[in-house]
Amino acid sequence: MKPIKVGLLGLGTVGAGVVRIVEGHQQDLLSQTGASIEIAQILVQDKSKNRGVEVDADKLTEDPRDVIENPEIDIIIEVMGGIELAKSYILEALDRGKHIITANKDLMALHGPEILAKAAEKGCDVLYEASVAGGIPIIRTLVEGFSSDRITKIMGIVNGTTNYILSKMSQEGAAYGDVLKEAQELGYAESDPTSDVEGFDAARKMTILGTLGFHANISLSDVEVRGISQVSKEDINYGKQLGYEVKLLGIAERQDEHISISVQPTMVKKSHPLASVNGVFNAVYVYGEAVGETMFYGPGAGGMPTATSIVADLVAVVRNLKLGINGQRAFAPYKEKKLKTDEQIVSKNFILLHVQDKAGVLAKITQVFAEHEVSLESVLQHPNETNPNAEIIIITHDANQAAMKKVLKQFGDLEVVHAVKSVYRVEG
Amino acid sequence: MKPIKVGLLGLGTVGAGVVRIVEGHQQDLLSQTGASIEIAQILVQDKSKNRGVEVDADKLTEDPRDVIENPEIDIIIEVMGGIELAKSYILEALDRGKHIITANKDLMALHGPEILAKAAEKGCDVLYEASVAGGIPIIRTLVEGFSSDRITKIMGIVNGTTNYILSKMSQEGAAYGDVLKEAQELGYAESDPTSDVEGFDAARKMTILGTLGFHANISLSDVEVRGISQVSKEDINYGKQLGYEVKLLGIAERQDEHISISVQPTMVKKSHPLASVNGVFNAVYVYGEAVGETMFYGPGAGGMPTATSIVADLVAVVRNLKLGINGQRAFAPYKEKKLKTDEQIVSKNFILLHVQDKAGVLAKITQVFAEHEVSLESVLQHPNETNPNAEIIIITHDANQAAMKKVLKQFGDLEVVHAVKSVYRVEG
Repeated sequence: MKPIKVGLLGLGTVGAGVVRIVEGHQQDLLSQTGASIEIAQILVQDKSKNRGVEVDADKLTEDPRDVIENPEIDIIIEVMGGIELAKSYILEALDRGKHIITANKDLMALHGPEILAKAAEKGCDVLYEASVAGGIPIIRTLVEGFSSDRITKIMGIVNGTTNYILSKMSQEGAAYGDVLKEAQELGYAESDPTSDVEGFDAARKMTILGTLGFHANISLSDVEVRGISQVSKEDINYGKQLGYEVKLLGIAERQDEHISISVQPTMVKKSHPLASVNGVFNAVYVYGEAVGETMFYGPGAGGMPTATSIVADLVAVVRNLKLGINGQRAFAPYKEKKLKTDEQIVSKNFILLHVQDKAGVLAKITQVFAEHEVSLESVLQHPNETNPNAEIIIITHDANQAAMKKVLKQFGDLEVVHAVKSVYRVEG
Repeated sequence: MKPIKVGLLGLGTVGAGVVRIVEGHQQDLLSQTGASIEIAQILVQDKSKNRGVEVDADKLTEDPRDVIENPEIDIIIEVMGGIELAKSYILEALDRGKHIITANKDLMALHGPEILAKAAEKGCDVLYEASVAGGIPIIRTLVEGFSSDRITKIMGIVNGTTNYILSKMSQEGAAYGDVLKEAQELGYAESDPTSDVEGFDAARKMTILGTLGFHANISLSDVEVRGISQVSKEDINYGKQLGYEVKLLGIAERQDEHISISVQPTMVKKSHPLASVNGVFNAVYVYGEAVGETMFYGPGAGGMPTATSIVADLVAVVRNLKLGINGQRAFAPYKEKKLKTDEQIVSKNFILLHVQDKAGVLAKITQVFAEHEVSLESVLQHPNETNPNAEIIIITHDANQAAMKKVLKQFGDLEVVHAVKSVYRVEG
């Protein structure tokens, strides 16, 4: 088989990882694919910049046309990030019959259907294993490993920054702001951390996982998103006392073909496998009707782990080239998307209230739950020496979101309730 | 595409699960593959037996030729178990150009190369995801997900029976014999539990995982095997006190192209993700040079989880049929097998000694380690009120197996050492 020439768009940490693996594993890649693979052209912003990986100077270019329009290049790996420019390069490359591998979750979450439709039209592969959970082959697992099963729940710790922050807060009893600052100093959080801490990054990844797991075209706007910036160390401590860890979970659920999808800080029971996933690690828990509980754990980011997934996709594209089946192993969503109503979204809940410290208060509060048919698993009145309020922690049994919203609204009108301090979904 | 007819060899728990999924998921399977899939003939030992799943009587047969020689059948699923008969049926079916899906780890561990060679010759698929770790798609993960990486270590909890027993011993402080009896009553252990508790079942699975992970033909006889029947509750308690859980691990390691592979009860540090895998669950930890640490967790046995993997393989074969590429996505081991010598096998070790309770004993013991250049991480002299001996627990730094064997042999000749009570590899 003739050597396969690959073009690389971008040479940051992940791009450098791709170069390292492709150059370092030549013999293995040849054995695995029957072809030698060469990175022929690399688009960079500044050719003179040092990149920590050795690359022939004549492979670097600042002109995207040298990659996208290069007739010798069969496969393009996009690791430049961003949305509009990356999208236009990819669509143009597809028009020229080139296969695409991308790590770009933002792009795939927003424009995945358009890109995949173009790929189908042109008979090209578009693979994006690296776009979710870095080194964990979760996309393959959903598409191939569980092709036989009906997946009813996907819960993911798919953002390393927030998991690092929450793990530190839990382990050290530290406050959100302090840990965020430390994470920024260590390079685990961006100087503008909004996309991570407000859950937007996780929401994009859940859009991709939900679409693949439930075979319906889920949009980013379908995801209800709440980040971790309001999680207090008190919440984490109360959770721990009751046997829970707070984790930012992406949760995609399906019941009777109705789907809900969200990202939110969640109280996860300590015995649940997601509860012990700490630091910058990612994990995706998948529940299938037939298979039951499974979980896939590994590094969610980093140059080499992400490059592992990209080059695994590259191996797949080259194997397809050898068999002449590019563009034929993609599977478009075949189910109509039906979103759950608030009445259909059901979970346990953790609620922390600040209330007046006098007789009859608990009766009034439990009455509100009873009115909306929300039954309670446990109620704890917590002594609080530094606070003039009494604190009450309630864990509900399974309750639907519509009823919970009514309960919480009514607490706002209740004189004895000074504040609804926190509300979390409960899992496990 | 014409309907695909499938023959089933065996209709036990797993076979019934396959029937349930194929019949229950007709519409999904059609959407996923473009073909309708029908289970056409099922080989059973006794047609009159009730199987807990509804099957047309005329699909059942007691004559294997109705399945293997049936010209209408494209794909055969072998879930009858056993070795010789299953092997002859599969080879005969391959000779007739039929594709094979099997859950038979014993067969694949012993005769995998012969069966896969025949499949290559005949242009047939042979898939066996269900043979290792039931519902966890670990074979796909190794072959496709990590195709780009150099895997250097695979550690698996791949036997649910022994993990159930060890978890119970740890959680309840119970003795091996009592928990084994309970496991037998619950159906988690066979009446003759030898294959599970002595590690033979795990060794077969590790043969398969090692072959796929390291691209070299590993034989069952290459696996050093030690079971859990000698694990005492004292060992587990001492381990816990020091921060370890005892787990039966299959461990396949590679360094500089030299491989070692073993199954042995191992002290696993509590912070390691394998340490919290409890009960009948399985998990496979994979370390790759580029990706780093990953772990895949799920049910290791059971009718429906195992059937999930089998039907995922069925989907793959049907997709291959549609693309006309059967037999072309298999990858034969391409590396020479070189086994590590005892000098090359390196690990930390936990050693429990019963020694004379008098001055100078510890000096003599540590002198033996020093002679063989084994350095020690910690030494604990443990008070033991019921025992006239003193107890010493030693955890070594990384030491090679040859040196450890010499140390242990020398303890046998040392008057002050009454007994080497236990020796465990230490991980994490």
